[in-house]
Parts: sequence; structure tokens; C-alpha cells
Amino acid sequence: MHGQDEEMIRRVAQRWEQAWNAHDMSAMAALLADDADFVNVWGMHWRGRDEIEREHANRHRTQFKDSVWKTGELRVQFLKPDVALVHLGWGMAAGRDPDGAPRKPRQGLFTWIMLKEQGTWRIRAGHNTNVSAPPSA
Amino acid sequence: MHGQDEEMIRRVAQRWEQAWNAHDMSAMAALLADDADFVNVWGMHWRGRDEIEREHANRHRTQFKDSVWKTGELRVQFLKPDVALVHLGWGMAAGRDPDGAPRKPRQGLFTWIMLKEQGTWRIRAGHNTNVSAPPSA
Repeated sequence: MHGQDEEMIRRVAQRWEQAWNAHDMSAMAALLADDADFVNVWGMHWRGRDEIEREHANRHRTQFKDSVWKTGELRVQFLKPDVALVHLGWGMAAGRDPDGAPRKPRQGLFTWIMLKEQGTWRIRAGHNTNVSAPPSA
Repeated sequence: MHGQDEEMIRRVAQRWEQAWNAHDMSAMAALLADDADFVNVWGMHWRGRDEIEREHANRHRTQFKDSVWKTGELRVQFLKPDVALVHLGWGMAAGRDPDGAPRKPRQGLFTWIMLKEQGTWRIRAGHNTNVSAPPSA
């Protein structure tokens, strides 16, 4: 039975949303493992909590300054008692392009690999993708 | 020491490339866990080996019919002796859009979560992204 662990993981997702919307990247980074890997929607690969925090903080000073994150469907599967595979649907409003132009609201899908260490679940790997229509589909 | 396991994982990546380029989706599906999750570059989420095989086979009859996959950098990290986090860079040439229009060569980055069960490493979760430039960056 993984009920309590799933609840802990759902709280991490809530705290991600809260940290994003407060633009508090230090609170967001606290949800990551030290050696976390992060692949963003453009296929940029950041390695380690410090780099992930810094890259997000840069964007939250500019394009994500007013952005609002909303977590949607969350699906948690346990690969081991202390390893979880998480799929997290999300929406974002009020984002901007790097040149400041308003960006339409968009939706995405995150894969997280989470590890439980010393009683705490943290994100060891994240991979994020915008949900969009294939060309000409 | 994970040398032998890493070698086995590298062979899975080689077999992925071979199966793709032979357009043999049954050989590709043999690399997946029964209950695999797969998120493609458009954020479509396919669940289970059968669905992943079917969706790929559909595309290999059309837009991927002549496509050529080339695996690039492969990075393997062991989260447990039998759980591996894999980042796999790739390139694709000779793909087409769903309407048949030739698509430019593109590059991408795959995250795989692999599990070793009964001596065999299989892909339990895949998440794929095209590497591209952010708008106006």
C-alpha cells in the first residue's frame, strides 16, 4: 500500500505549483535532488539542483515573471517502494516569449522520477513537454 | 560497478536504432516493459507496450516510412542496481509531416527509465522532446 507515499508526492506537486506562482525558485529547488536532471520543453538539459534553480530563476525574472502554473492530472506509479514514476499535466497562463511578447496559454506534460531518501520524496529527474498538435495533423 | 549493466543498456539503445531504421516496430516493442509509458514530442501519452507499438507502427507506414534514426550521446545513471536513468540524444533525417511534406532533419533528447527484470533491461518509461530554439531567443 502506497497511500501515504502517494499523498507525500501529491504535496510535492502542490508545492511546485505554489513555488512557481510565488516565483520562489529557492522553494522550487528544495523539491529537487542534489543531482537532479531536468530537460525543459526546448530540450535543454540542466544538471544538478543549482543549475536548475539558476536557469529557472533567470526566466522567472523575465518571461515567467507573471506566469501562473496550474497542475492538472497527476498520475503516480511506484517502480520500487522508494522510486516513483509521476506524470503531471499542467497549464500555464500569462507567460511571455524571451522578447516580452505575450504567449498564449499552453498546456504540458511532465515526467518526474522521484526518489524517497531519508523519508523525503524529491524529484531526481524531470522531463517537460508542451502539448501541441503535430504539423498538418 | 555497473559496467556490464551499462553495456546491456547501450545495446538496447543500439537495438532501438536498428529497429527504427528497419521500421520493425515489433522489434522496437520488445525493448519495452509490458506496462511502459511513452510521452512523444507532441505530449501524447501512450500506455502499455501494445499501444506504443501500434502508434509507432502507424507512423512508420506514413511519416516515418523512410526516416533514419541516429543515436547520439548516451548517458546512463543508476538510481538502483536495477533502475537506470538514461538520457539519449538522437537525430532524425528523411521524416515527413502527416501530410507527406518532407520535414527537415531534427534532433531530440529522450529520457528513458529502465528496469532490469529477470536479467533483462527494458524501457519502463520514455519521454521524448525535439531540441529546438525558444521563440525570439
